[in-house]
Order: sequence, then structure tokens, then C-alpha cells
Amino acid sequence: MPQVYAMNGGNGPQSYAQNSSYQRGAVDAAKELIKEEIDKELDVKQLSSTSVHPFRIADFGCSTGPNTFVAMKAIREALEEKLRKEGLASEVPEFQVFFNDHISNDFNTLFASLPPERHYLAAGVPGDFHKVLLPKASLHFAHSSCTLNWLSDVPNEVTDNTSPAWNKGKIHHGGAKKELLEVYASQFAKDLESFLNARAHELVDGGLMALVIPTVPDAIRESQTTIVPEKGYEVLGSCLMDLAKKGLVDELKVDTFNIPLYYTSLNEIKTLMKANEHLNVQRMEKLSIPGKHEFLSNPCGIALHHRAVLEGLLEKQFGSDIMDELFELFTQKLAESSSLFNPENQDVVLIFVLLKRKMRT
Amino acid sequence: MPQVYAMNGGNGPQSYAQNSSYQRGAVDAAKELIKEEIDKELDVKQLSSTSVHPFRIADFGCSTGPNTFVAMKAIREALEEKLRKEGLASEVPEFQVFFNDHISNDFNTLFASLPPERHYLAAGVPGDFHKVLLPKASLHFAHSSCTLNWLSDVPNEVTDNTSPAWNKGKIHHGGAKKELLEVYASQFAKDLESFLNARAHELVDGGLMALVIPTVPDAIRESQTTIVPEKGYEVLGSCLMDLAKKGLVDELKVDTFNIPLYYTSLNEIKTLMKANEHLNVQRMEKLSIPGKHEFLSNPCGIALHHRAVLEGLLEKQFGSDIMDELFELFTQKLAESSSLFNPENQDVVLIFVLLKRKMRT
Repeated sequence: MPQVYAMNGGNGPQSYAQNSSYQRGAVDAAKELIKEEIDKELDVKQLSSTSVHPFRIADFGCSTGPNTFVAMKAIREALEEKLRKEGLASEVPEFQVFFNDHISNDFNTLFASLPPERHYLAAGVPGDFHKVLLPKASLHFAHSSCTLNWLSDVPNEVTDNTSPAWNKGKIHHGGAKKELLEVYASQFAKDLESFLNARAHELVDGGLMALVIPTVPDAIRESQTTIVPEKGYEVLGSCLMDLAKKGLVDELKVDTFNIPLYYTSLNEIKTLMKANEHLNVQRMEKLSIPGKHEFLSNPCGIALHHRAVLEGLLEKQFGSDIMDELFELFTQKLAESSSLFNPENQDVVLIFVLLKRKMRT
Repeated sequence: MPQVYAMNGGNGPQSYAQNSSYQRGAVDAAKELIKEEIDKELDVKQLSSTSVHPFRIADFGCSTGPNTFVAMKAIREALEEKLRKEGLASEVPEFQVFFNDHISNDFNTLFASLPPERHYLAAGVPGDFHKVLLPKASLHFAHSSCTLNWLSDVPNEVTDNTSPAWNKGKIHHGGAKKELLEVYASQFAKDLESFLNARAHELVDGGLMALVIPTVPDAIRESQTTIVPEKGYEVLGSCLMDLAKKGLVDELKVDTFNIPLYYTSLNEIKTLMKANEHLNVQRMEKLSIPGKHEFLSNPCGIALHHRAVLEGLLEKQFGSDIMDELFELFTQKLAESSSLFNPENQDVVLIFVLLKRKMRT
């Protein structure tokens, strides 16, 4: 299994940059909450007594833009506003923004798209965000949106044909099989712990972190219901099996391919966040996304959204030659089961979490 | 004229990564001097009383590797050795390395080539190094090798047909014409001042900067002799004029194309460095490069070396279609005038400069 993967690069019609309006909705919805929390929770006087210059911000799992630029601008503006309010902006502070994503992320496109009028110094940080990426106590604000649902890897049991969690002929757990769900949940817990500990190392005392995490309601998780995006992966998996039957894809490769994606529940993240000894949860709530996404009611839109996100992973396993045929078939099958992809019927809930770094002793 | 340009990306046969053994020689030759200067000049006790953690290093004009990784490793090792010697390495310090180059540099290749066992946190910093790229007083060691000969732009007078510095039908000043040489020298002085001031902003008090600058001997500069690499640009320019005569290239485009490259002299940089009020020159000397470069006696090797460095600039002006023909013709012409490209006859002198940031008042 690939250990690193990234959203589609470039600015073309199948790029993440052109097909991430869903993720943009999450960024927009969180902006106001981030502003409130910076105003309420950030003790700039305490920070400025040690080292407020420069103010360092990081986005973990930034992809290629433009969503990350929207988020970083909002955070910088909220920080500047707070400094002004506290009478600490006599000289304009320097802001340094670190853009993190996997090594295989298209940083060339990210850098070429940097807004010219950005009012911050920019740096790219390549690497897995489950590890330490920035120096100890150097970061004032960490941000990560719609990223923690991506696991560091598919759990071994899933591709082991002797395990009860073996997922033959499918490409995602789909919520239905208890053993499968458990190994994914356990991988998610391990990954979240690594992520939180790495950020706790990097954040200054009193530094803040805003997370937006896609979840499913607890009742759905407990009833092992397959949720709408998982139904999409089921359809995509069935397309791969169709291509296998046509001899275009090795069936064994479908058996050993699984999407490293897990939708946690509110109860799960509450428990996991509270277990971290370095970070306090200051706020945790459901994000309301204003408006529905047109593209989610449109088979072509859904297919493009999936292609921008999953093509890198699929190519590594199946090669690039079948991608056009796969996504044409996927679009057709989506059109035939359009009731599943009703935009009114999206049961993913985005949870906003604000954490604060405890004082080091 | 393009304002930003970068070495050829990727890892292919025409890439900078595969054709930068000349630049590697400079990095290797400077390593020992850098080690000596870190040992002699770096007051780690004074630094550690303020903020030795993390130790921040930056390479300005890093290109795609691998040379930058060799330089950064040498600096990290020398710093660690110095900390150990002073009894300050009870805990292994964190190192953060910033890799800078133009936005159009191939950072994807750079990041994919990062040595897995690097012992530092890595970040890429896209942008023009004549401007501030890192926060105030945040950098302990700055490095830049074979980069300052690249100007921020071609001086306006060079492409102005009413100016005495107009360079019709040629692509480089070639050392021969006084007015031309003067506008290049004046652009170099302006660029060097911007570079030094930007680094003076970024360096901590007492922080060090090592530069390797390609120069020509003062006597050659004063006699307006055309030096060997400039003769290479003359040949390349004549190839472009040949293609113009064949109708493959617009002659006007040759008239308005000039390579933004200038070889300063030791006297010039002495004067310019001493004029900077924030940095002290601690050492300045000729670098001896052990061994001659085989590829410099071989027309194919010279052509590849030039292609890796100049293709990006040439493509912007003339398009990519003529590149193969241009460099085939260049290789042929080089073969016919091989006496010019005798490796014993390389009159570029590499100067090593070590600067130290003065204390801020």
C-alpha cells in the first residue's frame, strides 16, 4: 500500500484546485469560529512577553490551494485584529506561514498560486503530519481542515486473507462489518494521537489549534449503517470489479486496495482529544455549512470531486491507463443511482475543535 | 524579460540535478572553510543564552539538489561539532533548514530528493532572495553558492535601442563593451546590496553567512577581456542568430534577449561587502577546486551544463520547440572551437566570503 498520497496537482479540470468547493465550504464555515476563539483564547500579552515576533501559523494537509490561502488569510487577519485590540500592534508584526502536506503534494502549484498580496512570509513543509515537522515551541496557531479522516495507512488486517477484517473485493470498509470498522477505528485513534502529540511539541505554551474533522453521527456509527460517501466508494469499488471482469484490472489488486479513509464519530473524538495530556479542548461543536453543494447532486460533479482526491492513490495501484474509463463508468453508475447522491442526504457532519497548548512545566 | 527563472527541474538527462557537477565542486571546496569558520566565529554560548533552539540554517538559491543537501549536511555537522565542543550538546539540538529558490524552481523534485537520514526539519521557501524571506533575527547560518552572479533582471538599457549599452544581436555583454559592462556592474551592485540587507534582517546577532561567488580576476575585468564562459554565451548567441537566419527564430527576439548573468571581480565585491553596515567580512579568499572538471573539456558536457542552467530562460523567450536544434547546433560549434573550452583555461575564480551579523543596538 502507498504510504503517502496527495490530492491531484496542477490547475487542470481534474485538479484538486478546481474541484475542492466542498472543502472550501468547511474552511469558510470555520472562519468565524476561529476569529472568535483567537479573540477569546489567545493571550497575546503572555505570548509577547516571550516571543511574539514572528507570529507563526501552519496549515497541516494544505494541498495545492486555494482553500489553504483563504484559511491562512482569515487567521492572520484575526491575529492582527487581536494584537491591535490589545494595543500590541504599534509595529506591524511579521507573520510566517508554513504550508504542510505529503512529499508527493504538488508544492510547485501551491507556490505558483501564492497570493501576491499575502502579508506573510511563506514556507512549504513536506512530510507526514503524524510526525514532528516544526521545531519545539515555535508555532502560535495550527490549522487542519478535512484532513484527519485520512489515515496514515490502511491497517494490515484489511488486506490479510487470514484476518476476520479481510475486505475482499471492496475498496472501503463501508461501515458495515464490525471487525473491519474496529481496525479502522483503532488506526484512526493511533494516528490522531500521533498528530496531537506532534502539534503539542510544535506549539508554544498557550498556542492554539483549530481542526475541522468530518465525522458521522454516533447513532449511525453504532448502527453500522453505510453512509453516503461510503456508498460512493462501494460504487467505485464495483466499477473496479467490472474492469477486473473485463480483464483490464487484476482482481487481486482490487482485493488488496483499500482507501485509507475513516469517518470518526463525535463520541470517539471527544474521548481521544480528552486523553491528550498536552492540549486542552476549549470548544467542540458541529459546523453548519451554509447552502448545499450543487456539484453533489450532479454525477459528473461527484465523480470529479472523487477523482481530484483519489486518483493519486488509484494510479499507484492500477496504473494511469484505466483512469478515464474508470471514472466514466463511475459517472454512469452514479447517474443510475442518483437517489443516493441527493445533496439533502449528506450524513457527514463537520466538527470544529479548538485546542489550546497547556503550559510546559 | 522574465523576472524569475530557475534551473531545469526533474531528474532527467537535461536536469540541473544531473548536470551540476561544476557547482558541486564549489560546495565541496567550501565545506572545510565553513567548518573552520563555524568553529572560530560562532559564539554558541552567546547564542544559547538567547535562543539556540532550534538552530536555523538556510540555503539561498538551492535549486533541486543534490548539491544543497551536501552543503546543509556539512553545516549541520559543523554546528553540532561546535556545540559538542562547547559542552552545549547535552540534548541533541533541533535543526531547521530552509531551502530557498525562485517560485518557478522545481520544489517537487527537491522535496522528493530530501535525504531520508537528514537529521533536520526541512522547509521550502519560494521567492526572490533579493527580498526578505524569513523573519527578523531568526536565522543562525545563511549559505549561498554560485548564485549571486545571477542578476534580478537584465538592466533596461541593454534592450533599449537608443542606449549606448544596447546589445543588438548578442545575448550577453561578453566583457567587451564598456557601457554594457557598466550597466551590468551597476545592477550587480544594487542586487548584492538588496541580498545583503535582506540577510542582515533575517540573521540573529552574531549569525554567520557563507557565500561562494564566481568572479573574474581584476586584471581581466579591467582589460575588458571576454572570459571563457562569456565566449560560450557568444557561441550560443551566434547559434540563435543562425536559427534567426533560417527563419526559425525572430531576430528581434534575439536582440531583446540577454542572459542576466554577471561575473564580478574581487575588488568589486570587497568594496560592496565593506559598504554594508550590518555585516562584517570575516574572511574572503580564493577557493581552490581540487581537480578539473572532465565535462568542461567535452562539447556535449558543456552543452548539457548550459542547457540545465539556461533552458528555462531561453524557452520563455523562444519557445520550447527549437531547444533541441539550438543545443545540437551549440554542441557542434563548441566542438569546432574546442581550444576555447580547454579545462586548463577556465578563468572564473570562485571567491569564498564569510560574513558575521553585527549586534543590533
